[in-house]
Amino acid sequence: MRNVAVCSYATSKFTKRSNLSIFDLACQPCIKVIRESNISKTEIDAVLFSSCSAEQYGSNIISEMLGISPKISHRIESLCNSGTNSIVSAYAYISSGLCDSVLVVGAEKANSPGSVLSWDVSRGSFTLPVFWAALFAKAHMRKYGTTEEQMASITVRNRSNAQKNPNALFKSTDNEVITLNDVMQSRRIADPIKLLDCSCACDGSSAVLLLSEDKAKEAEIESPVWMKGIGQQITGASFNQASSDLTTINASKIAARGAYAMSNTSPRHIDVAELHDSFTILQVLALEDLGFVREGMGGMFFDQDQGVVINPRGGILGCGHPVGTTGLAQLAEIAAQLSGKAGQRQVQGCKTALVHNLAAAGTSATVMILSS
Amino acid sequence: MRNVAVCSYATSKFTKRSNLSIFDLACQPCIKVIRESNISKTEIDAVLFSSCSAEQYGSNIISEMLGISPKISHRIESLCNSGTNSIVSAYAYISSGLCDSVLVVGAEKANSPGSVLSWDVSRGSFTLPVFWAALFAKAHMRKYGTTEEQMASITVRNRSNAQKNPNALFKSTDNEVITLNDVMQSRRIADPIKLLDCSCACDGSSAVLLLSEDKAKEAEIESPVWMKGIGQQITGASFNQASSDLTTINASKIAARGAYAMSNTSPRHIDVAELHDSFTILQVLALEDLGFVREGMGGMFFDQDQGVVINPRGGILGCGHPVGTTGLAQLAEIAAQLSGKAGQRQVQGCKTALVHNLAAAGTSATVMILSS
Repeated sequence: MRNVAVCSYATSKFTKRSNLSIFDLACQPCIKVIRESNISKTEIDAVLFSSCSAEQYGSNIISEMLGISPKISHRIESLCNSGTNSIVSAYAYISSGLCDSVLVVGAEKANSPGSVLSWDVSRGSFTLPVFWAALFAKAHMRKYGTTEEQMASITVRNRSNAQKNPNALFKSTDNEVITLNDVMQSRRIADPIKLLDCSCACDGSSAVLLLSEDKAKEAEIESPVWMKGIGQQITGASFNQASSDLTTINASKIAARGAYAMSNTSPRHIDVAELHDSFTILQVLALEDLGFVREGMGGMFFDQDQGVVINPRGGILGCGHPVGTTGLAQLAEIAAQLSGKAGQRQVQGCKTALVHNLAAAGTSATVMILSS
Repeated sequence: MRNVAVCSYATSKFTKRSNLSIFDLACQPCIKVIRESNISKTEIDAVLFSSCSAEQYGSNIISEMLGISPKISHRIESLCNSGTNSIVSAYAYISSGLCDSVLVVGAEKANSPGSVLSWDVSRGSFTLPVFWAALFAKAHMRKYGTTEEQMASITVRNRSNAQKNPNALFKSTDNEVITLNDVMQSRRIADPIKLLDCSCACDGSSAVLLLSEDKAKEAEIESPVWMKGIGQQITGASFNQASSDLTTINASKIAARGAYAMSNTSPRHIDVAELHDSFTILQVLALEDLGFVREGMGGMFFDQDQGVVINPRGGILGCGHPVGTTGLAQLAEIAAQLSGKAGQRQVQGCKTALVHNLAAAGTSATVMILSS
């Protein structure tokens, strides 16, 4: 297998509603990615478009708008897990030798059709994701004594991190931070989940350029970031397939095992991690499922204690959740961190990092491990 | 790069309208493919779903319905070229070593959103594909003297082939054949394209199981078919990007060059070919662009003269065009031919074969070369 490097990356400013079409939105970070790489448009072998948008032929439309004529071009959709599916696909194209350079772009509008899960009959009338988040949260509270305050503190931390991220949806102009009290007093949506335990759908786009090792050398990429481990797992599509134990997400555990094995690492090697925190309870579960803390301890985790920094860009809670974009924005952050270009958010001395991306009640998960 | 084999394949009966959901439709050939392989459901590493359907998370829904929990699962969309994009993606997953077995399934309903190209402003009000087919046909007639009768004879031949294909939309119960006169007298849609020069959108599904060489040996696959050459090219998304010369499709030429080079073959090695004949003129162009005949001679081509059999299953004209399914149905036919299991349609002694799949006025093309 050929080594694969992340060589250039960019994320747009996430907003509640932009005036841009999904294609204009998609082009924004691509233009930056191409400009900042030493790769010319004619050298791009594939364009993969991650989105839940109902538009057809989107990947070709974006390619045409960018003036690229790649060999391979298509859209990839797997709900919130679309972004990392696209990245792994790009990895496969390069690693197999079919491509030397792949541009992966995620774009989504806030009104993405990915937000309601009407096909999942196991949910009855409860089609919104918040209902299963409530079940996960209740189960964890019951079994381990996790508190609403512990979950609320995750929003406080991730929103606070987002203040250092100019592209985050919840970067406030005056750096006003959310307090524990704000989260606790926010509207109760589905007990015990409150409004500020939830992420927010938004407009946003992100792009990364992946290159083969030879191509990265040829292009004299300064600080490439290497894809070292990949683990993916689906357990189904319906909530009743996610897990029989509602205090854990099996797909995450299996995906993590695969990624650690492939990269010959373990949780203690990870310096910085992007965890899928579309609800606060999901960060609690991810901390446990990925092995950063023991079972049941996710609610008590604080970065400074553990030698790993979680969601420095602000996570999904702080950045917003443009569904098909999220996995790419996570990777863009990790690439920035590992190449020492994360600015105000830089985690000093980080060498190994992790991306964790979920979809649909944890019925699918991707874990990727990268190193500088 | 690891070798990749097509080991099992199935296609549903194509119909104008079935009572099945797209997911039930998708499961039909998958069940057959899994049953006929020596691979258990737990050994399937990835499920890739090719479709233009607006349904979300379809690949996971299909996996759940089939009782499969793969590592990788997503939907791939690139209009009529979705099917072969999915196959090439599966090839990359296996060749890279990320997967040993990939189930690729295409499914489409006749009312697929892939049939109108409303985003292509270069078409003005002419959003239906038949308008560009008419331009291609007129240009070829003008430059090379190709006649309407020559094009009509392609429908006659492909519909006649379809009489040996029980799954073809236009397999008539009494084997009634279409005559040249029928085509010539059919309703004129956009001069010189008549109704019977056009393929017909329909419900249909098809699936193939791809395995690594080791896995194929382990499963004692009797007559695996090998993927030897892959070429893909996009030239854009809009009709005005397809080609400046309307008598040729550049994407086909470039894709063919890539596939011949990778497989170290040339047109004279090809014993049987599935060409993208969604309009009769496209088969004329494909014959030239892929090098089976000289430029301008596509209208005068007859199988028996050339040592290559074209569209034995009936092509898209005879089988119908369930958009995201087509590339898979083409591969399923080629795999059947090369493994000597094409029944009444068997091309005797065929060893090397080709699949050619297009989308959107030839703005993207895939060419794959396979051998027994």
